Amino acid sequence: MKSGTGIVKRVDRIALNKVAAGQATESQELIGAADGAPHFAMRRFVMGKGGGMPRHTNAVEHEQYVLRGRARITIADKVFEVSEGNVVFIPAGVPHSYEVTEAPFEFLCMVPNKEDRVELLDGCG
Amino acid sequence: MKSGTGIVKRVDRIALNKVAAGQATESQELIGAADGAPHFAMRRFVMGKGGGMPRHTNAVEHEQYVLRGRARITIADKVFEVSEGNVVFIPAGVPHSYEVTEAPFEFLCMVPNKEDRVELLDGCG
Repeated sequence: MKSGTGIVKRVDRIALNKVAAGQATESQELIGAADGAPHFAMRRFVMGKGGGMPRHTNAVEHEQYVLRGRARITIADKVFEVSEGNVVFIPAGVPHSYEVTEAPFEFLCMVPNKEDRVELLDGCG
Repeated sequence: MKSGTGIVKRVDRIALNKVAAGQATESQELIGAADGAPHFAMRRFVMGKGGGMPRHTNAVEHEQYVLRGRARITIADKVFEVSEGNVVFIPAGVPHSYEVTEAPFEFLCMVPNKEDRVELLDGCG
């Protein structure tokens, strides 16, 4: 639902799109530049059984909040087991990966309105 | 838990502070400039029974995600009933208010790293 001066939506009515670099991973943009958001975007990621993202870097930082499920997140050389109520900050350029341990694993991921570039670090082997 | 290159925290281990302009309202900073976040901050608000915030404006926009409970949010002249899974965008300068209808009402509220200014609109009467 949209007004000229404020926007309220339901997360389950927004399209999810497959994330090419992930396994069993989809994402949706909840609030973004198309809504008139001037500085940063809110996205939600949903990862299914066996899902995750291989080790990669982004050109932008991530501020994340875990909503549901469990995963093992590696940031640089540290491994974290996360679940609902975990907050995660990944600075720009720091290698990180996700491995679902209890599906579905769902989290919000906020990023600034800057051009991102995903670089996979472990090849395709 | 903090590493030199990434930060993982649990929301229930971060101090909550009373919000002076609200009723039965507390907030906590989950990720902010103190963590090295360069562009925007993630906060969580918790409103108890009878809680809320009167009509006000902020100098910065809000990107919000409802985690728990229910509330009536007024943005400009539109009234929205929100609950878990609602996404709310309130542009800078737009009058808005919160009235809890099912406590606790909990939501994330992301704001840019810019100086905010809260202006109450209905006086103290």
